[in-house]
Amino acid sequence: MDSSDVKVLGAWPSPFVMRPRIALNIKSVTYEFLQEGLGSKSELLLQSNPVHKKIPVLIHAQKPICESLIIVQYIDEVWSSGPTLLPSDPYDRAVARFWAAYVDDKWFPCLRGIAKAQGKETREEAIEQVKEGLVLLEGAFEKCSKGKGYFGGEKIGYLDIAVGSFLGWIRATEKMNGVKLLDEAKTPGLVGWAERFCANSAVKEVMPETEKLAEFAKILQAKFKAPPPN
Amino acid sequence: MDSSDVKVLGAWPSPFVMRPRIALNIKSVTYEFLQEGLGSKSELLLQSNPVHKKIPVLIHAQKPICESLIIVQYIDEVWSSGPTLLPSDPYDRAVARFWAAYVDDKWFPCLRGIAKAQGKETREEAIEQVKEGLVLLEGAFEKCSKGKGYFGGEKIGYLDIAVGSFLGWIRATEKMNGVKLLDEAKTPGLVGWAERFCANSAVKEVMPETEKLAEFAKILQAKFKAPPPN
Repeated sequence: MDSSDVKVLGAWPSPFVMRPRIALNIKSVTYEFLQEGLGSKSELLLQSNPVHKKIPVLIHAQKPICESLIIVQYIDEVWSSGPTLLPSDPYDRAVARFWAAYVDDKWFPCLRGIAKAQGKETREEAIEQVKEGLVLLEGAFEKCSKGKGYFGGEKIGYLDIAVGSFLGWIRATEKMNGVKLLDEAKTPGLVGWAERFCANSAVKEVMPETEKLAEFAKILQAKFKAPPPN
Repeated sequence: MDSSDVKVLGAWPSPFVMRPRIALNIKSVTYEFLQEGLGSKSELLLQSNPVHKKIPVLIHAQKPICESLIIVQYIDEVWSSGPTLLPSDPYDRAVARFWAAYVDDKWFPCLRGIAKAQGKETREEAIEQVKEGLVLLEGAFEKCSKGKGYFGGEKIGYLDIAVGSFLGWIRATEKMNGVKLLDEAKTPGLVGWAERFCANSAVKEVMPETEKLAEFAKILQAKFKAPPPN
């Protein structure tokens, strides 16, 4: 396939942008990665996602597909000859979709809440909520993985991508706040899974280094705390 | 199929609960409808959806499936011999998923905002946002329906169910606020679609009467405005 036929509009630090990139890697689809600048939006992005004006956007055969989890499902359905991402059983599929939605709708706002917290108390509360969510995900991992290495069983699947895309930011958050979010005592399954996921060849080149993300987070915080330019 | 094998935990006024009910009707699957009381949650609900503790829950073969749009996809995949709900083309499927997510994440909070608004100005703002969203959905309808009667083409599909489940509340909101949200000038396609959708045999018995919903809304408002009991 001509790589110019597949484009991802995104930015390297975004967990949501990592999702289509990992999915395309798993399917061995080459793609062009077009990065948006921090705080600016390209004409192509505005045209491709006029409703939300957000990355990631996958452009395939000149057609835009938006929303990271919808893109991953699209990739799974279009390149169906490669390894499958969604479980084959409808019930398992519903469970994977449930936890992926949980991560985006409930858990991630708490993770972001740690960085946004103004006071010590609010930050500690957000840290507790993130940990509680990870304990729930530990339970989901036990059930979904059925004793194998990934949420998807023997290989990375949809829910691995949905949760795993946050691992860089989990580690950066741990580093910046001097806390442990994933630990051997409460989330032993996830600790091992996180190592495996990040070492996987489909993920490695896409997952940003913790140090680099922490530096980026500082730039971001400075930008949003700074007074608006004249 | 034994109807006791399929249960829906829900409540008649909930648009989200209507979704699995309509999907099951389309697939000709009989089910038991177990209604939750207003403001209370049954043991079965708490056990079936311990994360969100919310309706609807579909219980099929003793297993719970949560989140209305995930349930509709599950129904489509399990009873695959009946009429299909998701489009067969992956791109069309991604588009249907995109607009269904838009309705839940962006548009519905505005509709609810009309009822929750404290002042005239806030209410008018929410009404404008709802109308703007409906104009976007009119554009989606034009593209998805391809000149036919439904978002799903010739028959009710996933996106019809996602948007159509709100028609009762759109009409109740219009009645209670003396406004037109769907109108011939700006959303002519949706006006005709709404008539067809509500008259469809899979929807008719499930869609509450506008009057009944408006009465229920008053009870709800009184309940939440009333001082807490001693």
